[in-house]
Amino acid sequence: MKLSIGKKPAIIPTPILIIGTYDSAGKPNVMTAAWGGVCSSDPLSISFSVQRTRHTHPALCEKKECTISIPSTQHVKEADYFGVTSGKDRNKFSDTGLTPVKAPSVNAPYVSEFPLVIECKITNIVSVGVHDLFVAEVVDVLVDDAYTTPDGKGDLSKIPFFFYHPLERSYYKTGEFLMQAFSTGSLFK
Amino acid sequence: MKLSIGKKPAIIPTPILIIGTYDSAGKPNVMTAAWGGVCSSDPLSISFSVQRTRHTHPALCEKKECTISIPSTQHVKEADYFGVTSGKDRNKFSDTGLTPVKAPSVNAPYVSEFPLVIECKITNIVSVGVHDLFVAEVVDVLVDDAYTTPDGKGDLSKIPFFFYHPLERSYYKTGEFLMQAFSTGSLFK
Repeated sequence: MKLSIGKKPAIIPTPILIIGTYDSAGKPNVMTAAWGGVCSSDPLSISFSVQRTRHTHPALCEKKECTISIPSTQHVKEADYFGVTSGKDRNKFSDTGLTPVKAPSVNAPYVSEFPLVIECKITNIVSVGVHDLFVAEVVDVLVDDAYTTPDGKGDLSKIPFFFYHPLERSYYKTGEFLMQAFSTGSLFK
Repeated sequence: MKLSIGKKPAIIPTPILIIGTYDSAGKPNVMTAAWGGVCSSDPLSISFSVQRTRHTHPALCEKKECTISIPSTQHVKEADYFGVTSGKDRNKFSDTGLTPVKAPSVNAPYVSEFPLVIECKITNIVSVGVHDLFVAEVVDVLVDDAYTTPDGKGDLSKIPFFFYHPLERSYYKTGEFLMQAFSTGSLFK
């Protein structure tokens, strides 16, 4: 039997997206978003939601370019700090000692110490309640060379990812391999 | 140093969303989507993307209501099957032996055996490449009574969730607790 628990953000897991922009003064800034994900395969696109009050919001609207850095468990505290502090008041890079690097293909900074970076160009902005949902086309993906094979391909299986649990408002590690997807086509017929 | 690996859906983890609708013949149908997540806090809304060729697509456009059931690791094979088979040809509930139940607040079925169900009303449809991105307001959330406390509140910490890894095209368990979110406000200042 099912019991109602009311309106809750009951999607588990949600990713940790570190959105990188230059603000109007040219200062590199980052904010953490858990409301986002892939939204189309072709052209490959990502959507993520940002409240209009956030310092990152005008930078996204004006520059129409950003990075999304994905942190590993090594930087869970820094990723959390990027979500609880505003770039209006602080320089989050100098506060945490992490390094902003200009992305090669878009006019936005990424976090050098984070293993995975998505370069994005914003193609649409959709108002949804208190948030704007930004739709962004993926321009390129960068992986730290600590996580590549000798022939130069990404080997992401070694990156210790983590995620946000929105009902517990806490972070968890990703866990063990279960099974290959798209493998059950004839299993139940 | 960072190396380019090209355009990849590099968001890890992505959730497993089982979208429930009644089709034009009134048959309960489900499909698996990994492209989706929360997209606004107020009114609490979810977005998810569905290709226009999918059997679920016209049902979403016509009925404007759906459920999103979140499976546990107990049903990883069934969740995968819901993504690789079309409701045009098959009855996925009878194929898998799982049970469709009419949701209390929306005109759509959910999967009785899955622990967590979000009831949704679609408020916007945005075209993004080959996908349509459906924005849906959360009407209510249901939890299986196996995962509630004696005073009737949800206790989701016991649900064994899993996620999809889009670069490996495989499923993984969620892992261990790392830390509470929103706890580092003064740590780096």
